[in-house]
Amino acid sequence: MQAEVNRQVLFSSLMTGEPKPEDFEWVETPIPEPDEGELLLRNLYVSYDPGSRGRLSGRNSYVPAKRVGEVMDAQSVSEVVLSRHPDWRVGEIVAGFHGWQDYAVSNGRRLRRVDPDWGPITTAIGVLGTPGLTAYVGMRKLMPASPGQTVLVSSAAGAVGSAAGQIAAIDGARTVGIAGGREKCAYAQEVYGFDRMIDYKAAGDVSGALADACPEGVDLYFDNVGGPILNAAVANMKRFGRILVCGQIAEYNLEPDRLTGLRDVTALIGKRLTMRGFVVLDHAEFFAEAWQTMSEWIKTGRLTYREHIVEGLENAPRAFCGMFQGENFGRGLVHIADPSTPENI
Amino acid sequence: MQAEVNRQVLFSSLMTGEPKPEDFEWVETPIPEPDEGELLLRNLYVSYDPGSRGRLSGRNSYVPAKRVGEVMDAQSVSEVVLSRHPDWRVGEIVAGFHGWQDYAVSNGRRLRRVDPDWGPITTAIGVLGTPGLTAYVGMRKLMPASPGQTVLVSSAAGAVGSAAGQIAAIDGARTVGIAGGREKCAYAQEVYGFDRMIDYKAAGDVSGALADACPEGVDLYFDNVGGPILNAAVANMKRFGRILVCGQIAEYNLEPDRLTGLRDVTALIGKRLTMRGFVVLDHAEFFAEAWQTMSEWIKTGRLTYREHIVEGLENAPRAFCGMFQGENFGRGLVHIADPSTPENI
Repeated sequence: MQAEVNRQVLFSSLMTGEPKPEDFEWVETPIPEPDEGELLLRNLYVSYDPGSRGRLSGRNSYVPAKRVGEVMDAQSVSEVVLSRHPDWRVGEIVAGFHGWQDYAVSNGRRLRRVDPDWGPITTAIGVLGTPGLTAYVGMRKLMPASPGQTVLVSSAAGAVGSAAGQIAAIDGARTVGIAGGREKCAYAQEVYGFDRMIDYKAAGDVSGALADACPEGVDLYFDNVGGPILNAAVANMKRFGRILVCGQIAEYNLEPDRLTGLRDVTALIGKRLTMRGFVVLDHAEFFAEAWQTMSEWIKTGRLTYREHIVEGLENAPRAFCGMFQGENFGRGLVHIADPSTPENI
Repeated sequence: MQAEVNRQVLFSSLMTGEPKPEDFEWVETPIPEPDEGELLLRNLYVSYDPGSRGRLSGRNSYVPAKRVGEVMDAQSVSEVVLSRHPDWRVGEIVAGFHGWQDYAVSNGRRLRRVDPDWGPITTAIGVLGTPGLTAYVGMRKLMPASPGQTVLVSSAAGAVGSAAGQIAAIDGARTVGIAGGREKCAYAQEVYGFDRMIDYKAAGDVSGALADACPEGVDLYFDNVGGPILNAAVANMKRFGRILVCGQIAEYNLEPDRLTGLRDVTALIGKRLTMRGFVVLDHAEFFAEAWQTMSEWIKTGRLTYREHIVEGLENAPRAFCGMFQGENFGRGLVHIADPSTPENI
């Protein structure tokens, strides 16, 4: 069903603390018109990402602070509905960064064709998009695990964590995951194959649970959350252990003076730890390999993913806010429309 | 002057907060007798080191927690006064880890001959001992700076920091140091050649002072202190910057629930930072090169050092405690006795 106007969700007030649906504003604007050299996209699916939170406080994060009144950031899978660009034709399915709205104009930069052979088109902004690439680049390129090592992953039922754990296991590591709630933990153990799962909500003493699950210590911690779980992980790291800092969802909603942070920096010395923060977009040289390898793993069933698809653009703000309460279970996507070419569904 | 008994300073009560001289106990015991295969050492100089603090809380640090009643840890320069070991002869000057006492028995392990050609014997536990080796291994091997990079060093007038800054400058970096007080800052700038010094006691806003001194940001931070200065440094790191975590003197006296820590872990992601903690004793493969290179630099005046020598074993506890108040200015050593062979003085 094609909207007659361009429905948009704007970021409408600087956030402090937990994001609220009222921080967003719903507007309807005319469908934009592409100039020569541009194309018009109709968004089919858009994402909601914890990493966006940093831009919404008015502080510069790893991307510049967002201005009030801008369309909310999101990754997108779209159909080309009008093209005035020689390289793109109507009906093609493309992935990009086109935000919470029905339509967007693109000049073709930061746009890539979605290969329908790789799987459902949603995977282009899921397991074969930023989340999956992040897991692949982190676990395979920046801090690969050796066979037999113990790899700990937080947010292990999430889009990045589930892929990180499966990749570590493919590479021969023993994997221990952390997630919130029995359902996510059971799923991560059964479907993603984590050797052990810790339910941080039930555990109470996460550090003690980690000591129990990792009696010889953690060789590599893939950190998606920060906060108290990071501190519990550091307390259980093995000497010469490594920490890949990928996300800090437990910290994003805290004002600067309330951050938990990493308390025991002396442990970095005592345990000879290395911590490395990264953003996958810096490592595009690995994407072709990652796509090829991961799409093959998906086909052969070695890599499994789960999407949490919310119906309708109007529900995007609530889904985004709920994510910080752990309401998400899998890659967060909003379904807006279906492609007009049925073979792409 | 040779003591007739073995005077020893014991660690006598678990410390909380700032160390106090009363946490140590003075005892006099018989001079120990070496067995076959052992040798008797008379300590000439012993060190006092911030890194020892970690062992004195009863918690395991990068060395196991120390037990009450043990002789206080220290590095030592000693004379062999009796040998029942084929490899060592009376009159040799050796460096080791023989604590705050007049005499110690050694089996020859973890002992090395002091080469008098390399400089005064104190340098064996100073600029050519652990502090200097730490600076060398850190700045040259683990995280070498490139020419033109901005290297920030805290505790820049101290034994490790002063060497780290000079080595970074030798390798072509621009060096910015942090120290407490005008005297130390002036000295570090004039004698150690730091391009800029920040007096953290006078600066108030260290982060602002860093922004002023490092307008393009910090490429590499050699951290000897942790705490608020680490947080100010992180706020001023350049993208893809690196932090070498060598010491955390601002944190050692804090109970676990009062640690400052690293607050903004998200900055590790945003700025793509790497932090690495290290202990120089893990990297003995570099020591021969370090000794050769640094002793040459010392001879040619490229590497300068300063020792803070306290007279008499009885003053060691006060010197150790004062170090945490910034009373030290250079490598902290206690002079106990002179060698009987005058050419070694």
